[in-house]
Amino acid sequence: MEDHSVIGKRIPRIDGRAKVTGEAKYAADYQMPGMLWCKIARSPHAHARILNIDTSRAKRLPGVKDVLTGKDFNGWRWGWMPKTRDEEPLATERVRYLGEAVAAVAAVDEDTAEEAAELIRVEYEELPGVFDPEEAMKEGAPRLYDHVENNISWDFHMDFGDVEKGFREADLVREDRFETGRVITGYLEPPAAVALYDSSGITLWAAKQSPYFVYRHMADCFKLPLNRVRIIQPFIGGGFGGTKNDSLAGDFCTVLFSKRTGKPVKFVYTMEEVLTTCRRRHNMIVHNKMGMKKDGTITAMQSKVIADGGAHTAIGPLTMYLTGCMSTLPYNLPNFKHDAYRIYTNNPIGAAMRGHGVTHTRFAAELQMEMMAEELGIDPVEVRLKNAVTAPHETVNKVTVKSCGLVEGIQEIAANPRWKEREKTKGTDGPVVHGVGMSATSYLGGARQRGHQSCAAIVRLCEDGTLDYLTGATDCGQGSDTVLVQIIAEELGLRVEDVDIKRVDTAVTPCDAGSYGSRVTVLAGKAAQNAAREVKEQLASFAAENWEVRPEEILFKDGAVSVQGSPDLSMPFDKLAKIACYSGSGAVIIGKGYSDYGIEVLDFDKGIGNAGTSYSFTSQLTEVDVDTETGFIRCTDMVIAHDCGRPLNPINVEAQNQGAAVQGLGQALYEEFRMDRGRTLNPTLVDYKMPLAPDSPNIEVIDILTDDPGGPYGAKEASEGAIVSVPPSVFTAVHHATGIWFKEQPLTPEKVAMALKKKREQEGTDG
Amino acid sequence: MEDHSVIGKRIPRIDGRAKVTGEAKYAADYQMPGMLWCKIARSPHAHARILNIDTSRAKRLPGVKDVLTGKDFNGWRWGWMPKTRDEEPLATERVRYLGEAVAAVAAVDEDTAEEAAELIRVEYEELPGVFDPEEAMKEGAPRLYDHVENNISWDFHMDFGDVEKGFREADLVREDRFETGRVITGYLEPPAAVALYDSSGITLWAAKQSPYFVYRHMADCFKLPLNRVRIIQPFIGGGFGGTKNDSLAGDFCTVLFSKRTGKPVKFVYTMEEVLTTCRRRHNMIVHNKMGMKKDGTITAMQSKVIADGGAHTAIGPLTMYLTGCMSTLPYNLPNFKHDAYRIYTNNPIGAAMRGHGVTHTRFAAELQMEMMAEELGIDPVEVRLKNAVTAPHETVNKVTVKSCGLVEGIQEIAANPRWKEREKTKGTDGPVVHGVGMSATSYLGGARQRGHQSCAAIVRLCEDGTLDYLTGATDCGQGSDTVLVQIIAEELGLRVEDVDIKRVDTAVTPCDAGSYGSRVTVLAGKAAQNAAREVKEQLASFAAENWEVRPEEILFKDGAVSVQGSPDLSMPFDKLAKIACYSGSGAVIIGKGYSDYGIEVLDFDKGIGNAGTSYSFTSQLTEVDVDTETGFIRCTDMVIAHDCGRPLNPINVEAQNQGAAVQGLGQALYEEFRMDRGRTLNPTLVDYKMPLAPDSPNIEVIDILTDDPGGPYGAKEASEGAIVSVPPSVFTAVHHATGIWFKEQPLTPEKVAMALKKKREQEGTDG
Repeated sequence: MEDHSVIGKRIPRIDGRAKVTGEAKYAADYQMPGMLWCKIARSPHAHARILNIDTSRAKRLPGVKDVLTGKDFNGWRWGWMPKTRDEEPLATERVRYLGEAVAAVAAVDEDTAEEAAELIRVEYEELPGVFDPEEAMKEGAPRLYDHVENNISWDFHMDFGDVEKGFREADLVREDRFETGRVITGYLEPPAAVALYDSSGITLWAAKQSPYFVYRHMADCFKLPLNRVRIIQPFIGGGFGGTKNDSLAGDFCTVLFSKRTGKPVKFVYTMEEVLTTCRRRHNMIVHNKMGMKKDGTITAMQSKVIADGGAHTAIGPLTMYLTGCMSTLPYNLPNFKHDAYRIYTNNPIGAAMRGHGVTHTRFAAELQMEMMAEELGIDPVEVRLKNAVTAPHETVNKVTVKSCGLVEGIQEIAANPRWKEREKTKGTDGPVVHGVGMSATSYLGGARQRGHQSCAAIVRLCEDGTLDYLTGATDCGQGSDTVLVQIIAEELGLRVEDVDIKRVDTAVTPCDAGSYGSRVTVLAGKAAQNAAREVKEQLASFAAENWEVRPEEILFKDGAVSVQGSPDLSMPFDKLAKIACYSGSGAVIIGKGYSDYGIEVLDFDKGIGNAGTSYSFTSQLTEVDVDTETGFIRCTDMVIAHDCGRPLNPINVEAQNQGAAVQGLGQALYEEFRMDRGRTLNPTLVDYKMPLAPDSPNIEVIDILTDDPGGPYGAKEASEGAIVSVPPSVFTAVHHATGIWFKEQPLTPEKVAMALKKKREQEGTDG
Repeated sequence: MEDHSVIGKRIPRIDGRAKVTGEAKYAADYQMPGMLWCKIARSPHAHARILNIDTSRAKRLPGVKDVLTGKDFNGWRWGWMPKTRDEEPLATERVRYLGEAVAAVAAVDEDTAEEAAELIRVEYEELPGVFDPEEAMKEGAPRLYDHVENNISWDFHMDFGDVEKGFREADLVREDRFETGRVITGYLEPPAAVALYDSSGITLWAAKQSPYFVYRHMADCFKLPLNRVRIIQPFIGGGFGGTKNDSLAGDFCTVLFSKRTGKPVKFVYTMEEVLTTCRRRHNMIVHNKMGMKKDGTITAMQSKVIADGGAHTAIGPLTMYLTGCMSTLPYNLPNFKHDAYRIYTNNPIGAAMRGHGVTHTRFAAELQMEMMAEELGIDPVEVRLKNAVTAPHETVNKVTVKSCGLVEGIQEIAANPRWKEREKTKGTDGPVVHGVGMSATSYLGGARQRGHQSCAAIVRLCEDGTLDYLTGATDCGQGSDTVLVQIIAEELGLRVEDVDIKRVDTAVTPCDAGSYGSRVTVLAGKAAQNAAREVKEQLASFAAENWEVRPEEILFKDGAVSVQGSPDLSMPFDKLAKIACYSGSGAVIIGKGYSDYGIEVLDFDKGIGNAGTSYSFTSQLTEVDVDTETGFIRCTDMVIAHDCGRPLNPINVEAQNQGAAVQGLGQALYEEFRMDRGRTLNPTLVDYKMPLAPDSPNIEVIDILTDDPGGPYGAKEASEGAIVSVPPSVFTAVHHATGIWFKEQPLTPEKVAMALKKKREQEGTDG
């Protein structure tokens, strides 16, 4: 990165000041004259038929302007795919989870709206519920949708090579059942929006990761062309997939209220609404079967996933796809079979979350590989190196790896003093035992799904040499705006502060699939680079004309433009900008760029082909202290050796990896919705335990440098890898400390203490 | 136009509904939480030295948040050119016109701000003023600027051919003095803005014709890069040049208040402020000398203009340029000399207005030509046809006419029954005499000044086949948004409602010089057409691939895409859009386009070259009734034969011509600021008499069709021509009715009655 001035530098977030001073406006901060407040009335039952809704008392409350029920949406439903449209803005005939929206009110202020929502009387006929996906699959289980047999919301199957042959070739075959937990994305800004419907159509100021998803939903729901739907992006206080990557009851209701009342209408969910009704990560049961030779070579893997989908399908088909298609990385796997079932239950809806889909099956496979290596007496490093893929590589399901820092990452971990001292530091004499664990994982960057996945960018030159940059890619807190601006500044030899980026506005920014699947740096970054290059070409032609040289000889560096090899031919960038903009009748200089990946066939239904544009590789070491009395685990240290290609902003890559690691730690050790027949028992941030700063380990992030040909400046993803690698490394560390293989997330003190007690009893050491 | 589906059709304004229902938001409608109101304290003297400003009482008033005086702007000044920066946001040492801004207050509401502005005490030392430009030019006259001799704010000179030789060749040479009046642009929406200054820079929601002018002023005044200044365009209630085409004290003060208080700050000028302090059309004295042969051929013209510039230069240099450079149209003129002097006086500032600059000198030349034709016994039609230019034509100062419907227009008027009956209808026996007059004029379209004059456009395809269109060109009421959208719809074979256009926002729309000089249809229209064509090319390549034909064979028409000559190969446009956007990884389709006129040398200082991209030609007939007792003139009918190339929206061309004609009529007959030593004596719309609906004549607009190679679909300007042609046609009609040549605007009843009395006395017919 020695040639670069801006790329690869630890540049602070460009939105840091606005956020730290409180100047940054989030959706909930928006106020408009005459604005009404919307509140949602929700079902107190997990499964019930709606017999009657009486809104009369609510309507009579002074200050109430309008009330909606599901019928006002005329049967409209939405879903991720045309065939999975099973969600209504407000439920009409049936509620399928506790907290499902059934009515909405619009009133002059928040208190009145809340009071009115409580005055809505719904007559229900309770139905038997089903809350466990394995139970729900059984014959005779209550059905959420009458036509859906066995409550299978979506199933997905892969079969490559010959797993039976693979298992026959193995010296050891093992089968295990793993469980991953019910966790939520944990943003601190609740969903919120302000809607305005007027003769120009819909304007919605909404906290969305992917405004263009919402724009399609709104156009469809309100029968408007897309160019009459405008989603404007305020600042966003965290996304992480799931809720903010989809539309919500509040979005549809505020728009319809605005249409009916002519007023702007706002909603802000409470944190209790977030924790009880918003989309969460699917909890899953993973049955994994692996074959291994004596030398550690994996011969085959077969997995079966049962996911708790909750009441609606949402983005679930993609989740199911991701549980399988990424299982063929990061290790060579010649034979692979996968069956994934997403099951409807009367729980809140399972959806996407950072590390989407992959975190479940990788957790299972990674742990199982360690178990088997242990059985076969093979070192954790050795078994990984034995199976690790190297670039170039094509998996059995045609995932193509063009750059790979996996081996280097594993070696980096293995060479770390903490790993070398592993056996020495293991256990202690006291009540606290110490363990060191490892994992290696891969995650996709530049997600590719079906359909409209390219990114585009527009870069406008101002005549003083500064730039305006338009992108449809959303910074929902991950710092992508800073990285995108760096790319443009680097291309033109400018400083970050010379480039201004505006928040997404679907009416003016180029269409973009959104901020998920680690796609922004990779795809929007490529588009930004290409747009900046188009500006550069236009400017270079003016400079070349000025100096009578060829445009290819013009260099842009350090705020100046010069001729290669002729140091005397040079001028400041802003001077060239002025010359260009004021020559003749005046040029307007605009660059547009697309993420220019070729068209590759991706078979979503069969799990063939690239789910991403490139693949990151994470190798991780984790150290834990386990209190053998209480079962309490404290994670003390992590070392994350991450191959994100080239870190375009190392401070951001570090922060993203650290943040993801702590989020992964929450998942491994602390976070879990406790449920009682569809009711969330811990719907507050006091009882739903996300790790806080004192719970965070020391996290060292090591950049493993590779150069991916696809990403801008060789960049790949950073942070989804780390959330995938944390749980298995924590579990292997705990195993190292305690000798016990745990297979269920989260590793609560109760589970650990009970297991240690049982182990002591079995070993006869318990007194 | 038979081939077109959208172009050439009488399509209603796309913003009509929003405006008629009151939904359209103007700057004054903007409300923001915590917003402060700004009011300006103004000088009660036309010329005075500021000795002291005491703001203490204003500051003490409860609710006042901040007070500004000129010093807070650190000596910053602005002006149209670097060397004409003579205006301060708030005057510091001296006030030069009555009503000049000297201080400003920001308070919690409008009333408090107004009260506080009145509490500001300014100590002045009155200076002798000068209010007449001819007086101001004299040696020894009081100077407005100590270093400016003879108060000459700007002078401009042209000299082509040999006028002395031309006069020698003439059979008749005549010299006259003409006067044009003090009129204002007459928009009904007063200037207003809301400013917000935060860490992203300046955001200003402001009623501006040319937001990019203001953006440059703000960047310069507040020392910000251009990409940190965002001017957002609300709807605009009329512009017509002058005030809304420049920055105002209110703009600078609200921004500085916002910077200092952290709050949004708003100002709305009162109509009294508009009528006493805002920019108005220069009133001018035009000395004209013309030589004519017996056969009516004009041999030479020499003009001298003395313009009342008021206290500052503003856009005056361009006005002076336009008084001369356009004098060589619409008639052949081999020898031309012109001297224009813009003079500082202690009056409000003279600036641009519809028909900018041209209306004064054309009025003089057109009347004088008629006078001379009359003396030589030549018919008004004949003298015009004798001298009329035809395309292609290059004037003596290298103005190039590529299309010209002048002869056809004159013939159209001459063939009109009203003209044919002219002598029959002339005069009456009663107290009302009737007259029919004629004029012919030319105006530029697609104004070209110095510097950054190109337009650009961005057109984004939505995947449902609708489009978003970004332009920096402002519709300030003239209907240009509708025309621009028609162009894009036509190119892509769509309907107007398929294309959405957003208001200008300097942070996202392409840089554009603005809405003046009849440039929007011609230049922004060309850019729109090119951008739409780029979208078409991208889509055509998908269609061509689909049908295995060449892209050039693809047709876009009536919402469908087809292969030329293969009617079976066809699909709806929206289907192709979806195919394109969802092929492979999904295309994002964006077109950009520039107004692609070649670079031509324009010598602004010498008046050589094209001030416009094309030239319209207007031939007009006007009928009047003159009450010989009261002198009151009623204009009964107008016929306007206008060559605007191709009328892209005939209903709009008609309305623009009608509006301009009525505005021109106001100027010819009614409107005039009555001044007393710098004080405006009629600062209300009751006393400043703009024509109302009952004052409007019947106006027939006849489109003279030509095809200009420069404009989109052959279009040129519509409406500035008609404001130029009205006054001379009214004056010739009045002459026809009364036999008197009037040379001063406006033709008030007093002037007419006095002249008729004098005439009767001279003729001895008065009793």
